[in-house]
Amino acid sequence: MELFLSAAPRAELWAKHQPRLLAARKAWQQRTFWVGYPEDPKSYPETAAAQGEADFQAQLQKPFRRLRQESSTWLTSDEVSPYTQAHLGISYPQSSPDRLIRKAEEALAVWRWVPWNERLGVLMESLERFAERFFEVAHATLHTTGQAWMMAFQASGPHAADRALEALAVAYHELEAIPSHVRWEKEAGRSRIVIEKYFFPQPEGISLHIGVSTFPVWNTLPGLYASLAVGSPVILKPHPRAIYPIAIVAAVLQQTFADYDLPPEIVQLAVDTVAAPITKQLAEHPAIRIIDYTGGPEFGAYLESLPGKITFLEKAGVNGVLLESVTDLEAVAKNIAFSASLYSGQMCTAPQNVYIPRTGVRTPQGIVSYETVTEIVQKAIDDLASHPKAAPAILGALQNAGVAERIARLSQQVQVRRPAQAYTHPQFAQARTLTPLVAEVAQPEDPPVLHEHFGPRLLFIPVRSAEEGLDALCQLARTRGMLACALYTTDPSFQSRAVRQLTEAGVAPSLNFHGQAFINQSVAFSDFHGTGANPAGNASFTDTSFIVKRFRWLQVRHCLAG
Amino acid sequence: MELFLSAAPRAELWAKHQPRLLAARKAWQQRTFWVGYPEDPKSYPETAAAQGEADFQAQLQKPFRRLRQESSTWLTSDEVSPYTQAHLGISYPQSSPDRLIRKAEEALAVWRWVPWNERLGVLMESLERFAERFFEVAHATLHTTGQAWMMAFQASGPHAADRALEALAVAYHELEAIPSHVRWEKEAGRSRIVIEKYFFPQPEGISLHIGVSTFPVWNTLPGLYASLAVGSPVILKPHPRAIYPIAIVAAVLQQTFADYDLPPEIVQLAVDTVAAPITKQLAEHPAIRIIDYTGGPEFGAYLESLPGKITFLEKAGVNGVLLESVTDLEAVAKNIAFSASLYSGQMCTAPQNVYIPRTGVRTPQGIVSYETVTEIVQKAIDDLASHPKAAPAILGALQNAGVAERIARLSQQVQVRRPAQAYTHPQFAQARTLTPLVAEVAQPEDPPVLHEHFGPRLLFIPVRSAEEGLDALCQLARTRGMLACALYTTDPSFQSRAVRQLTEAGVAPSLNFHGQAFINQSVAFSDFHGTGANPAGNASFTDTSFIVKRFRWLQVRHCLAG
Repeated sequence: MELFLSAAPRAELWAKHQPRLLAARKAWQQRTFWVGYPEDPKSYPETAAAQGEADFQAQLQKPFRRLRQESSTWLTSDEVSPYTQAHLGISYPQSSPDRLIRKAEEALAVWRWVPWNERLGVLMESLERFAERFFEVAHATLHTTGQAWMMAFQASGPHAADRALEALAVAYHELEAIPSHVRWEKEAGRSRIVIEKYFFPQPEGISLHIGVSTFPVWNTLPGLYASLAVGSPVILKPHPRAIYPIAIVAAVLQQTFADYDLPPEIVQLAVDTVAAPITKQLAEHPAIRIIDYTGGPEFGAYLESLPGKITFLEKAGVNGVLLESVTDLEAVAKNIAFSASLYSGQMCTAPQNVYIPRTGVRTPQGIVSYETVTEIVQKAIDDLASHPKAAPAILGALQNAGVAERIARLSQQVQVRRPAQAYTHPQFAQARTLTPLVAEVAQPEDPPVLHEHFGPRLLFIPVRSAEEGLDALCQLARTRGMLACALYTTDPSFQSRAVRQLTEAGVAPSLNFHGQAFINQSVAFSDFHGTGANPAGNASFTDTSFIVKRFRWLQVRHCLAG
Repeated sequence: MELFLSAAPRAELWAKHQPRLLAARKAWQQRTFWVGYPEDPKSYPETAAAQGEADFQAQLQKPFRRLRQESSTWLTSDEVSPYTQAHLGISYPQSSPDRLIRKAEEALAVWRWVPWNERLGVLMESLERFAERFFEVAHATLHTTGQAWMMAFQASGPHAADRALEALAVAYHELEAIPSHVRWEKEAGRSRIVIEKYFFPQPEGISLHIGVSTFPVWNTLPGLYASLAVGSPVILKPHPRAIYPIAIVAAVLQQTFADYDLPPEIVQLAVDTVAAPITKQLAEHPAIRIIDYTGGPEFGAYLESLPGKITFLEKAGVNGVLLESVTDLEAVAKNIAFSASLYSGQMCTAPQNVYIPRTGVRTPQGIVSYETVTEIVQKAIDDLASHPKAAPAILGALQNAGVAERIARLSQQVQVRRPAQAYTHPQFAQARTLTPLVAEVAQPEDPPVLHEHFGPRLLFIPVRSAEEGLDALCQLARTRGMLACALYTTDPSFQSRAVRQLTEAGVAPSLNFHGQAFINQSVAFSDFHGTGANPAGNASFTDTSFIVKRFRWLQVRHCLAG
């Protein structure tokens, strides 16, 4: 049966990339350490760094002409560097939601009928090409998100590409499970029934991806590649203050599609401004069937309430730390300080609430009092925040002025132990910086404990016992959501109990993290990012449901003999 | 880490049944002919038939005491035999929705922590035990649904058990993909990070299964076993007129659970009456997270609108047939007549709308006129309906009086070609029977065409061309839903075009079915039942999304070295 739009050059891409995709799939199943794209910038060609910076500089104050989207109007974005506080001055082609959807529907009519292995081949090729842009995307990320250089490089470059590769690997795993064609035969009395059966995946419809200002690439690539893999065109609607990084990805994809005789509009960039948003208009359109989203819980709840949508949401939670007993308190304090300071706490996985028994924390040297524990953690934050090299490398800058305002409001509701203060960035005098607020509340029921205060902050919360702290954590997770949870205990019995309770509350706990292991980090091919089992989100990078919810198996039965 | 509730006898069950589950999984992936439970009654022990009938006779007019559900009140059901029109007089233990949910929550606390392979072992064991009840369940099905004997045996026995086995096989496929424990190591400068990682599936919550009166077992077992496999306790809420068949399944499961030291309440039967339904009370309870449902579209839309539920719905559609060209018109007519007559059209897969070009249908002998085609199909129905052996064996009886009323209403809206009439059942003089109404409408836009008239009926719809018929079919599928679609064409070009269009409308077409191959049938391990891609339903027996939507992967990271 002639159903598919096959093309030899695309089939060759599949042959070229299949071995690597097989390796990625094996890694996803084994879940031991594996990377597709190395995280060390030195792993890339020597000229790449300079070229990336030059590309970035050349793009500033110019139209972004790399997209293959026709438009009569160009929109100059709201993008402002958190480091220089200057507008990037980049303009992007602007389209109406209706036009974007019409173009996506045209692309769908083609993309859905490209054999899935050719689709995967083309997408693998686009990732290879994207890797050549890691340095430019790092600069673009740094100057839109406020991330420090190394995070900007890793999160928007190799780590994001690995998450995309992982999504393709899981798609491969699922799509390959069902044969595309079989001959089914059955004896029925004196006759023999022969039925040719064809199975093929068809996307649920068109995808909308709503990006976030803090991780415009890392949080976008898994859903983007998952939808593309199953034949769903994607409209990318980045946060109006962080368009440039994902525009690079969109341009690479469009060019790859065009080079392989496919409509560039399989991916489209939809730009808007903070003042005139178009997201709701897109999300509510009946042709939009799949929505990926990272952002605040209010807008997430709105998306969830839209009828007839399949949503993959990462909303917000309140992340907790519980100290029951530790082997090395100084090491634990440093680890917590790092996790709370990394990217100025502007991570969905940054810890906020630190529950500490009033009776103190057990250590090999005896019980350390609540007061001493808080002093040691606070000192670790101080040391990091005042370190001339560590502070800029770890804290980076604030994505927007709202973060500092939020932390200022929080400081009025709590007992401040260490005020949030700006630090001087050695390279960018105008950088919008803020070191963590360290504060204390009276008890776990206090209102500030029950809300996320996205930004640099850490709250000490005295609890009567570790058990009470555990209950408070679970309650918090069930009602507010939780994306990361650090549990410190050397007691195997408490450990099992805590893991069970937290798991039942939909939380994936991290036990006794210290040294260079941080709860903020989730790695492709090994860690599920988000459980999807508590109010912080309903999806996970990357489990099979992240893929299979996006498509349906269609079947054709052709009876040859009855 | 001590998390799981393991038990040697359950682990032994896993060892015992794993080979068979591996075979089932292989069959699901290969999708060629395979059965776990043979459909021929003669394949079962000689004494089984007599024993099954004796068990059935002994149960009539008695309390159903096999359930392990305590209750102070017993509810005598609304079950009436469509063959004898006598009440079955069986009573079942009655529980309040709150009590059912409390017991399910207690069961969840245990079942979620039973290792998944032990769960699968116990469930495989329960299926083996259920097979010993196939004959009783066949009688129970016949005398609640009105199915003829062979369908009652096959659909509620081996075919249902195979669908359950398939659900377990797909669950196995998914659960096994992720390792339960790995050691993750990464070089980080001079140090080495070592993290032990544990992965385990946790159910989304408690399941509610809302059964249908026509296929109380076949439509229930896939979702029931899918939920159980991933650790979700199930409350079975059968249709009040078809409780007995699934009560047998519930009793077998409860006994198996009890025998293996597990709470019987992992499955509970929730009974109600037509006059005092409890379904909404259960469905709306916040503890109910997963809902499986087969039934009418109005109630399905209500379930879909409930916030926070994961639904697996088989609602209704309008099934279509399109005749473009055929090789053997008589054979096609017989095939359509059989499909429309089987179980008096009380199947979600029974054809209703037959689109025929006014210009006639091409055959090797030349074009046959519209009028002649309709006469040949009508004659095939007449022949079947008047055959003293075929009629009772194929048509069976009407589940309830509403079916005949519906067909009577339909006959007033259409041009009747052959009135629906009762036939005399040779064995049951009181049987509620009805042979198919054959009727005609003027054009594809006529209102009767756009609604499902569940029961014995076939509508001829003249269309200007096969293309117009195809468009009408696609439009019907998009707006009303479609579970089965028969396409007759010998033209490869029309075939490809039609398959593409129908597929894009979310329909899985069956081409040129004839002889003993019927569009009504979907077989486990090869056919997906329902695409989930049109308004007829949002799920499919059994794809991976049918399984993975019911659970989340939880993860624990234990840092040993940082």
